[in-house]
Amino acid sequence: MSSLKEINPISTNTENSRFHPLDQLTGDEIMTVAEIVRKGVPNLNIVFNTITLKEPKKELMMSYLGWDTTKPRITKIEREALVVALEKPSMKCYEALVSLDNGQLKRFEHIPDVQPILTMDEMFEVEELVAKDPRVQAECRELGIEDMSCVFSDPWAIARHVTYKGRSKRMMQALMYMRTCEDDNQYAHPLDFVPIIDLGLMKVVDIERIKPRDSKFTRPTIPLEKHNFLPEFVGEENFRKDIKPIIVQQPEGVSFKVKGTEIDWQKWNMKISMNYREGLVIHNVSYQDGAEKRPLFYRISLSEMVVPYADPFTPHNRKHAFDVGEYGLGLCTNTLTLGCDCLGSIYYFDATFNDHNGKPFHVPNAICLHEEDAGILFKHTDYRNGRAHAVRSRRLVISQIVTVANYDYGLYYYFYQDGSFQYEVKATGELNTHVLAEDETPGPYGVMVAPQINAQYHQHFFTMRIDPMVDGANNSICKVDTQRVPHATGHPNNMYGNGFYSESTILKDTAEGQQTANYETARFWKIINENRIHPYSKGPVGWKIVSNHHTPLFAQDDSVVGQRAGFAKKALWVTPYNENQIFAGGFYCNQSDGDDNVEHWVKDVQSIQNKDIVLWYTFGVTHLPRVEDFPVMPVEMCGFSMKPCNFFMANPGIDVPPTNKGINHSKLASKEKENKAACCTKL
Amino acid sequence: MSSLKEINPISTNTENSRFHPLDQLTGDEIMTVAEIVRKGVPNLNIVFNTITLKEPKKELMMSYLGWDTTKPRITKIEREALVVALEKPSMKCYEALVSLDNGQLKRFEHIPDVQPILTMDEMFEVEELVAKDPRVQAECRELGIEDMSCVFSDPWAIARHVTYKGRSKRMMQALMYMRTCEDDNQYAHPLDFVPIIDLGLMKVVDIERIKPRDSKFTRPTIPLEKHNFLPEFVGEENFRKDIKPIIVQQPEGVSFKVKGTEIDWQKWNMKISMNYREGLVIHNVSYQDGAEKRPLFYRISLSEMVVPYADPFTPHNRKHAFDVGEYGLGLCTNTLTLGCDCLGSIYYFDATFNDHNGKPFHVPNAICLHEEDAGILFKHTDYRNGRAHAVRSRRLVISQIVTVANYDYGLYYYFYQDGSFQYEVKATGELNTHVLAEDETPGPYGVMVAPQINAQYHQHFFTMRIDPMVDGANNSICKVDTQRVPHATGHPNNMYGNGFYSESTILKDTAEGQQTANYETARFWKIINENRIHPYSKGPVGWKIVSNHHTPLFAQDDSVVGQRAGFAKKALWVTPYNENQIFAGGFYCNQSDGDDNVEHWVKDVQSIQNKDIVLWYTFGVTHLPRVEDFPVMPVEMCGFSMKPCNFFMANPGIDVPPTNKGINHSKLASKEKENKAACCTKL
Ligand SMILES: [Co+2]
Ligand SMILES: [Co+2]
Repeated sequence: MSSLKEINPISTNTENSRFHPLDQLTGDEIMTVAEIVRKGVPNLNIVFNTITLKEPKKELMMSYLGWDTTKPRITKIEREALVVALEKPSMKCYEALVSLDNGQLKRFEHIPDVQPILTMDEMFEVEELVAKDPRVQAECRELGIEDMSCVFSDPWAIARHVTYKGRSKRMMQALMYMRTCEDDNQYAHPLDFVPIIDLGLMKVVDIERIKPRDSKFTRPTIPLEKHNFLPEFVGEENFRKDIKPIIVQQPEGVSFKVKGTEIDWQKWNMKISMNYREGLVIHNVSYQDGAEKRPLFYRISLSEMVVPYADPFTPHNRKHAFDVGEYGLGLCTNTLTLGCDCLGSIYYFDATFNDHNGKPFHVPNAICLHEEDAGILFKHTDYRNGRAHAVRSRRLVISQIVTVANYDYGLYYYFYQDGSFQYEVKATGELNTHVLAEDETPGPYGVMVAPQINAQYHQHFFTMRIDPMVDGANNSICKVDTQRVPHATGHPNNMYGNGFYSESTILKDTAEGQQTANYETARFWKIINENRIHPYSKGPVGWKIVSNHHTPLFAQDDSVVGQRAGFAKKALWVTPYNENQIFAGGFYCNQSDGDDNVEHWVKDVQSIQNKDIVLWYTFGVTHLPRVEDFPVMPVEMCGFSMKPCNFFMANPGIDVPPTNKGINHSKLASKEKENKAACCTKL
Repeated sequence: MSSLKEINPISTNTENSRFHPLDQLTGDEIMTVAEIVRKGVPNLNIVFNTITLKEPKKELMMSYLGWDTTKPRITKIEREALVVALEKPSMKCYEALVSLDNGQLKRFEHIPDVQPILTMDEMFEVEELVAKDPRVQAECRELGIEDMSCVFSDPWAIARHVTYKGRSKRMMQALMYMRTCEDDNQYAHPLDFVPIIDLGLMKVVDIERIKPRDSKFTRPTIPLEKHNFLPEFVGEENFRKDIKPIIVQQPEGVSFKVKGTEIDWQKWNMKISMNYREGLVIHNVSYQDGAEKRPLFYRISLSEMVVPYADPFTPHNRKHAFDVGEYGLGLCTNTLTLGCDCLGSIYYFDATFNDHNGKPFHVPNAICLHEEDAGILFKHTDYRNGRAHAVRSRRLVISQIVTVANYDYGLYYYFYQDGSFQYEVKATGELNTHVLAEDETPGPYGVMVAPQINAQYHQHFFTMRIDPMVDGANNSICKVDTQRVPHATGHPNNMYGNGFYSESTILKDTAEGQQTANYETARFWKIINENRIHPYSKGPVGWKIVSNHHTPLFAQDDSVVGQRAGFAKKALWVTPYNENQIFAGGFYCNQSDGDDNVEHWVKDVQSIQNKDIVLWYTFGVTHLPRVEDFPVMPVEMCGFSMKPCNFFMANPGIDVPPTNKGINHSKLASKEKENKAACCTKL
């Protein structure tokens, strides 16, 4: 999450600039919208939950982009803002739609039985509230803590609480820690109780004690041993001294062009945006293939996440964070630092969100755009004469880093010169920890990363929403399975037994569109356009989607998390495009019970063949923490990629020029050290 | 493979330098060894197949390294060379052992019924022979080729031929192509017949015609359309003009230290070597953990590969190249180019092998050693106050690139500052192609990447030999499976249904040591030392081995390739250490029938628990080619990694200092372009 220090309201001067329809709201627009809503409902005591651009309808955008040539081209689209507000103290939820073109409040309605996303303001309010609560203070005193300034809490979404279930009340739970000094790592000192907070009452309504299991103790003591990674604790004198700088420079400038938030790079063209929820979104991706500009994707984003924990006992069962739908990848985004988060020649984009009062808060350097060398792109040597041709791969990186309480995620979109696309998540930050009594063990649900510190097993699921546009709006999905030839060795059709083949199956409807990973058949999926046949392969042009990071959801299908995070049960779901289906876990994910998620949407069987479709693609990791993940976790990566698959007429990267030491100033390390023997050292 | 141009005999002056026991033979030593063997068997007409260092016995090395403290330390180990030679024209195989310390021929014996590795000399001889053969010329004439200088062949190992089976004869098969001009891509013009060559007779003994299937033609015509990627064909005027240089520099020098072929970097210490067979080998890896230098791995190498093709019909069934055992990753290694293969500050090592005459050939720049920035190593932000700490990851890269006829593989060993290790294969180069008649299709076994050009489906398996030494010679392997708690939602032990747990099983013997990948349980394996218990986790210290690139062998178990490449049937085999078991497919892999491979070795059940053990770990890809893989393939990556898993007392990277723009000169791209608006562009 962005720090409080960075929350600077920006200037309120009216702007005259014209917007691209996908440009996010400016600070001024946020204030204007808040004002319009307040004036529209003067008798309601509301706080603003989110104020965000209402993305234009796809059919309008398709025309605006020139991607739909069946209708006259639209050049202006009404600019609208979508507002979610909460009435105080009832915590009733309202939605408003505001036209920024004419300042009109077009819609304002109560949305019953939902709870919108949690906000930064609420995180801070809850932590303050908890520390002041007498029962919390009593709990702390019993643990030996008198000074409440040492006590910290990570407010979490409540999930679905056995007592406080439903959504009529807006609830949170607080995971409790202490610090032994300023900036001490609190995850080394977890406390054994969980306050439950009613945000309407702004009150701690319950405190749940986590009882030791199979222990002679009724309560664990607080582990006081420090486990820190910040420089003042490690001690600069203990830093490694033997790491020499690597300097990455582009003295002739970068290879990308930016206009507003539209990016042109190496035949790729796209528009980016960042909203409070999905964070970075990639819009309207196309590729210049000779004279033809071919559309590929209408919109790609990380639609939802869930991080379910393994321990079946209360309150751990409620730990299954939906980091997109409960906290927001935009709201939690970091201000990035040049030379630290980002190396080389960096282009930053800022982001702007709203606070409770409808005031903007600005996150500078929220998105990092830069290029990286990515090793060799291709190479071949003719061994006969040593004639070699090697070309280096360059990638365009568009990234953000989010902090969701203990965890931090780096989220990286990569575009390559061979037409491939990759998305990578780097999970880092802090393990969520739980305190054990001195004689207690984590059981088969976790590992002790320090005395009394249980790092519980968990999984991370990332569900991408991919709205494809492969050579047109109507696409299909085919499943590709590879199998042994069904004939024993010696059969005339498999004489030597080596035979195998691949089989493509087009998925017809939302029932078939529910796909699981299959290691046994090296399964992958293709987004194809059945209306365009590749002249060589004789099949539809396509785009292959691959992840090496599928993992099953280990929760029961009918578990609370299984219901709420139905999206994580399958590697892929395919649905017909529906403008209201943007978030795999539902728009109102917080305190949800699973009645508005992708699993629910596919209950009615609908056709998905040769239609405007959307993919919900999930990858993730099963994370069994290691001692080495403490006190801060080295990045753990997962992701997926998409590649042209019989789409272009050849390797689209063969026109990438080779480079050499004259161009990139590569040097012999041995010469730099004037070690003459180095270049003829024999093995 | 290294080019002929690079085969320069090196000086024959006697060297007085002292060797590390694992230093490969010098050119002088190779000549000396050849001379000793020739003098020892003056009446035999032999050619030298391979002359290579006989690696010292492990027990001696363990003492030499100080890793075995139970015996007095050995400081000098006898230097020996192992020679494989072939008698002409019988092609009988001999092994010789030569002491370099006293010039003695210690052993010379006939090895019956084997055929050693194919050599570069044989590749060239066979191609020349084939072009001169009258029956080949007649085939070509019938296809319309009069000028035999246009005809090229890729000589392949014969595999196991239905007629020429067994190993009494030394055989090859030649895959035929033509070129329409110099340096034309021959894989765009495959021919439809396969000469079979007897290397003893040095004669084409048969020609197999590949008949079109379901076609009205009896023979395909040769596709003449050019498909090229070399600059003179693409045309420099057609190169992308919009890619600006990226310059990577280390003005203060590199962070590694090299002494001979021993490398010190960031607490890692290792020795490297390159032999004719496995190419790059990593020896004696240890890690400085505080005051303790902890051994980790005795030896790591790519022990064998196999690339089986899908099409079950002759002669395609014989396409299952063992690139290590049939061609040799050392013999096929490229001379690397600064600024092209390798970017930044590069340290090169050369390699030296032997030719048929026992003369050395030298490959300059065979191994590239350098450092790379690898993104963030870890980051955490306290969202309360924005206090962030991010550290960049540096990796040490040790790599080679090999060319095995059409395919090229980049082979990269990576070491990281968080104690993790990674091995990555980048497959690139040219698809093996097969010509189709104008009306023919590849069936379900391939894809047409251009008219009449069938790129057949295939798999790539890479089997690593990992000789672990995790805190001592005696290690065990445990399998880790994660599963749902076996209780329905609502059961007292799984009230909310989220429960899952992980289970570790120590593998006791070579039967249990045969392991398949299991996506359903997110299975991975750990190398553990049961003699050292981690004080926090309370379990044995360990090292986790993970690949996201397991794929099943689709050939039948009893197929020819299934027998020969038994190693590819499992993700992991574990065997007790045996000094004669270095190559998963057998020492004499060429023309082998599977009687000396890892599958064979484990037939007798032997204990592997708390013993000196070896892992045979296989990863790979099922490669269904795309049109975009032609005429040269963008790199396709696969690999595996090993990480400390409850081995250290904390994240071993917390003492890595942060960097910043002052140190690494990172810059705003927008400032470079003097675009003042850029740093406050709003989304
Ligand atoms: Co995790
Ligand atoms: Co391949």
